[in-house]
Amino acid sequence: MNDPQAGPEADLADLRARVAEAEDLRLRSLADLDNLRKRCAAQVRRAIEDTQAAVAAQWLPVVDNLERALDHAQAEPEAIIEGVRAIRDQALTVLASLGFPRRDDLGATFDPARHDAVAVRNDPDAGAGTVVDVLRPGYGEGEHQLRPAQVVVAKAG
Amino acid sequence: MNDPQAGPEADLADLRARVAEAEDLRLRSLADLDNLRKRCAAQVRRAIEDTQAAVAAQWLPVVDNLERALDHAQAEPEAIIEGVRAIRDQALTVLASLGFPRRDDLGATFDPARHDAVAVRNDPDAGAGTVVDVLRPGYGEGEHQLRPAQVVVAKAG
Repeated sequence: MNDPQAGPEADLADLRARVAEAEDLRLRSLADLDNLRKRCAAQVRRAIEDTQAAVAAQWLPVVDNLERALDHAQAEPEAIIEGVRAIRDQALTVLASLGFPRRDDLGATFDPARHDAVAVRNDPDAGAGTVVDVLRPGYGEGEHQLRPAQVVVAKAG
Repeated sequence: MNDPQAGPEADLADLRARVAEAEDLRLRSLADLDNLRKRCAAQVRRAIEDTQAAVAAQWLPVVDNLERALDHAQAEPEAIIEGVRAIRDQALTVLASLGFPRRDDLGATFDPARHDAVAVRNDPDAGAGTVVDVLRPGYGEGEHQLRPAQVVVAKAG
């Protein structure tokens, strides 16, 4: 709008405009930060809800099959054992698909990250510090552990 | 560092300093934005992993009890039915604690958000559009639905 002027007056006007612009951009950045912070919190909340629903949905077939096994139990009491075994396997498949396969720790070297030693036993056939019994299996692999196994460990010589 | 000066020269120096400062603050805001964006993506990933593990862990007692029921099945085949019923109830408690209680939709007014109508039936005792049979139960309440119920709906007169 203003005609160009020579000298310090023109420099002053130009610098004032740059200060105003830089401050405006800074205020916008601060507003962006605030919005992003809110959006992030909302994204985390949504991720938690969506994941809860997705994982819960994976267990519905297990629940449906428990129901079915009960419906047929009166007619064929013998068949329920086979049914429950299949449901147990189905549940293990769900856990494995979530990244938590059941581990077979028998014979493994004791590892406090994966094992809870609930007893120590003399076992001449097993090397000291190896798992000689699993009381409750552990789930998970590598860094992705869900629950340690409860184990009995062989005593040193 | 500079001595104060009078007139346009002093104004110019002051404005230049303010432009530099405002631009510096703006650059920092942009860096903050970028960091926040990365942190947010990491937070969402962590929330998904933590929620998967937390929900999976809630199902472990159900799996343990399936195992226990199988262990005792040979000794007392009759007891397994009672055991499976208790495990089914335990599974329903886990689903309810995740915000997805099993619904009893018998007699409810048909609602496409909660019901899949798999059949229509003449039923003189039921009002048109009410649920007269539930083939597979639905889970969830209010806006928080996990699975619609498969239902049979009464036909109009």
